[in-house]
Amino acid sequence: MKLIMAIVHDKDAHNLADALVANKVQVTKLASTGGFLREGNTTFLIGIDNERVPEIIEIIRRNCKSRTQTVTPVYPVGNSIETGITYPTEIQVGGATVFVLNVEQFHKL
Amino acid sequence: MKLIMAIVHDKDAHNLADALVANKVQVTKLASTGGFLREGNTTFLIGIDNERVPEIIEIIRRNCKSRTQTVTPVYPVGNSIETGITYPTEIQVGGATVFVLNVEQFHKL
Amino acid sequence: MKLIMAIVHDKDAHNLADALVANKVQVTKLASTGGFLREGNTTFLIGIDNERVPEIIEIIRRNCKSRTQTVTPVYPVGNSIETGITYPTEIQVGGATVFVLNVEQFHKL
Ligand code: NI
Ligand code: NI
Ligand code: NI
Repeated sequence: MKLIMAIVHDKDAHNLADALVANKVQVTKLASTGGFLREGNTTFLIGIDNERVPEIIEIIRRNCKSRTQTVTPVYPVGNSIETGITYPTEIQVGGATVFVLNVEQFHKL
Repeated sequence: MKLIMAIVHDKDAHNLADALVANKVQVTKLASTGGFLREGNTTFLIGIDNERVPEIIEIIRRNCKSRTQTVTPVYPVGNSIETGITYPTEIQVGGATVFVLNVEQFHKL
Repeated sequence: MKLIMAIVHDKDAHNLADALVANKVQVTKLASTGGFLREGNTTFLIGIDNERVPEIIEIIRRNCKSRTQTVTPVYPVGNSIETGITYPTEIQVGGATVFVLNVEQFHKL
């Protein structure tokens, strides 16, 4: 048995939880902030049999992989940018930091 | 030294914390949700000497064991159940998921 | 790779986070309460290469070490202490509880 601790962006947390549950994986979510992925992330605790670890890593990768997104910023009415023209910009979203820890004992009470 | 991570129902968290403190065990509680025990659970972090692990598991079992409770549902006035008769129902409450991890170093600063 | 779980007083959490970031250490913070350090603490998750563990422990020690502080209590106007004289008192602040766990796999997705 392993304990996977995965720190993911809040925006990926719901999809990841859905994907894990769909694969009959039980998860616990801890509210967390800062650091690994700046503000607004969720820490997942996932207890899993050894042989399923690669499958879980793959599910996290599919749902949380760091990727770029093209956004066109919307400026508030009346600000000082006079042209009114905005340019699409690439931003980084998602990403996950994953630790796999050995579990010495597991109890379901 | 071991680190016990125990995910318990919120409704058992207070009694468990009291029982651990009464046994001179120091605990940290993390707010958590979902997964292992659905919404509304608490994750306990308990650092403990190896030889006390069975005692701690037993304290968690006593305070958090999954059990059934008989409830008689109360229907709101004016709903569509016309007979007004309600039946006692068994629901599952409590339960705990417990991971025991090895601690390589422990520091009290 | 190790995972350092450090439970520190809320009042030291900001300085510790700053010091870790200044040393290019990525951190995740979990809101936590009670137990190890009574109410109002923060749990830091720090993934770090083995050889940097002593450095991180030292950074935590510098920012969170348990120490005494001299406070002069301020009594509310109109309470029953008639003399109005207050005495400086020593209180304990800070302190940290640190667990170092082995990480079997680390993934940055
Ligand atoms: Ni959904
Ligand atoms: Ni109580
Ligand atoms: Ni600052």
